[in-house]
Amino acid sequence: MLKVLFSAAPERWDEYRAPLANAFVEAGLTVDLARDHRPEDVDYIVFAPNGPVKDFSPFVRTKAVMSLWAGVETVVDNPTLTQPLCRMVDDSLTDGMIEWVVGHTMRHHLGMDAHIHAQDGVWRNTIYPPVAAHRPVTVLGIGALGAACGQALVQLGFPVTGWSRSPKAVPEIVCEHGDDGLRRALTDAQIVVLLLPQTPETEDILNVERLDLLADGAFVINPGRGPLIDDDALLAALDAGKVTGATLDVFRVEPLPADHPYWAHPNVTVTPHIASSTRPETASVVIARNIARCEAGQRLLHVVDRGLGY
Amino acid sequence: MLKVLFSAAPERWDEYRAPLANAFVEAGLTVDLARDHRPEDVDYIVFAPNGPVKDFSPFVRTKAVMSLWAGVETVVDNPTLTQPLCRMVDDSLTDGMIEWVVGHTMRHHLGMDAHIHAQDGVWRNTIYPPVAAHRPVTVLGIGALGAACGQALVQLGFPVTGWSRSPKAVPEIVCEHGDDGLRRALTDAQIVVLLLPQTPETEDILNVERLDLLADGAFVINPGRGPLIDDDALLAALDAGKVTGATLDVFRVEPLPADHPYWAHPNVTVTPHIASSTRPETASVVIARNIARCEAGQRLLHVVDRGLGY
Repeated sequence: MLKVLFSAAPERWDEYRAPLANAFVEAGLTVDLARDHRPEDVDYIVFAPNGPVKDFSPFVRTKAVMSLWAGVETVVDNPTLTQPLCRMVDDSLTDGMIEWVVGHTMRHHLGMDAHIHAQDGVWRNTIYPPVAAHRPVTVLGIGALGAACGQALVQLGFPVTGWSRSPKAVPEIVCEHGDDGLRRALTDAQIVVLLLPQTPETEDILNVERLDLLADGAFVINPGRGPLIDDDALLAALDAGKVTGATLDVFRVEPLPADHPYWAHPNVTVTPHIASSTRPETASVVIARNIARCEAGQRLLHVVDRGLGY
Repeated sequence: MLKVLFSAAPERWDEYRAPLANAFVEAGLTVDLARDHRPEDVDYIVFAPNGPVKDFSPFVRTKAVMSLWAGVETVVDNPTLTQPLCRMVDDSLTDGMIEWVVGHTMRHHLGMDAHIHAQDGVWRNTIYPPVAAHRPVTVLGIGALGAACGQALVQLGFPVTGWSRSPKAVPEIVCEHGDDGLRRALTDAQIVVLLLPQTPETEDILNVERLDLLADGAFVINPGRGPLIDDDALLAALDAGKVTGATLDVFRVEPLPADHPYWAHPNVTVTPHIASSTRPETASVVIARNIARCEAGQRLLHVVDRGLGY
């Protein structure tokens, strides 16, 4: 019998208990799932950074730490973490992200807010948006999430450029990489979607200089990680009209403090880190199958490269 | 030399003059395009219902009337119109419609308005929308526009049911037809998109009885024609909470009068008949190619069936 420790925020226990139990059974595993195993007995940890485990050193026989979160930047540098760390890679996470990104891209593209806000009886039918084919979108980060979002936007007619640190090839997307590629990807982009992992290299990647490359009146959409944006630079670009609008789902500090200027800015929409939420049913299956692989002597999937940070 | 009369609203002349001239040249036609040909000399009429021509009887040698509009309900019953009438079927019209329908579907699906309106510093991250796979969408009308919109929504993961008067088969969409099919298509639908032509049979198709079939809290999106909806029934369903929101682009009277209750209703977004606008460059090509077909002795495309009304 495997001992699996559940270490996430307390309110998640009720959400995950049954789905994990079901998923373990379906994966052919016999599991004792609990929140209070002794560390030295634990085979696997189901983990979220805001749960109780901060020090991994007592978990001497633990074979892997299974993250419930796709983003692992708050745990990857933990010096006590010597066990393999697996990121959450869940198709329904991708689906949710695609929906959020497509939704907010279309909202900005169609200029929806003008109609949502101006229900004043005045029939303003003289301004049309361009068709999507004339609205270049750039996605920074073309891993699983970024590539899927970019391809969904291509399906809707947008010309999409993707950028990643190292060379990648994603069908239907113009792929750029490296510093020169970043400059090309951002130049004249009308909508920018941030889906990079958070690493020292990507922090503040959208800074004054790079915001200046965008098309005048561009939109910024950030469902990735808060520190990807230099917040002061974005606020200045919004005030100058260089950037016409931003939808931001992630922030350096979450919950975003009530007095943060993003809340008050008329051209910023704050959403509360909901772009893509791990759903217990599907995440549990991903974890159970990965544990079953490991138990069968196969390679774990989605193990974080500690050097790269993702 | 063909004589083509341009009969649309005066402000359209400057928009269409050059694109039509170019398109005629590219189609190999020699055309004298003007707004003031003598009726008895006119070979073809480029037509919009709000232009000067109301009586077609003096146009004794006119081979066809080429509508700039996709909807022809205001001209199809004109007893003086004995010439073939061609509807506008333009791919960029379809693209624009897909964008508008996807955008407003995603807006309702994601509950975006709650965030757009409530930028009050409160971090509300406890309510997630279902994934699209759990949000059934029904499209009434699966002609060229409805089928394309439905398929775009399928790509995003929505289960889509389409309905048409007579049987149709559209890949990826569950197709219903007839009265029983309409009842099945509307039952438990969470989002309804109206893209039917306006005919005596479709007028008030979304009435009290049919609104009652929808899932509680459904959304109604009408980029089709105003009279498809029984307005009093929709307002009552909105007030009762049966329908949670509506985005309406078309109305019985346009511009929608400033004192119409739709403008004032907090859960209705009025857009000013912009869901899909004919764009001069592409519409001109469609018209020129169709005239060239006719001149070459081929069958005109998109000729309106006067019995059906579309």
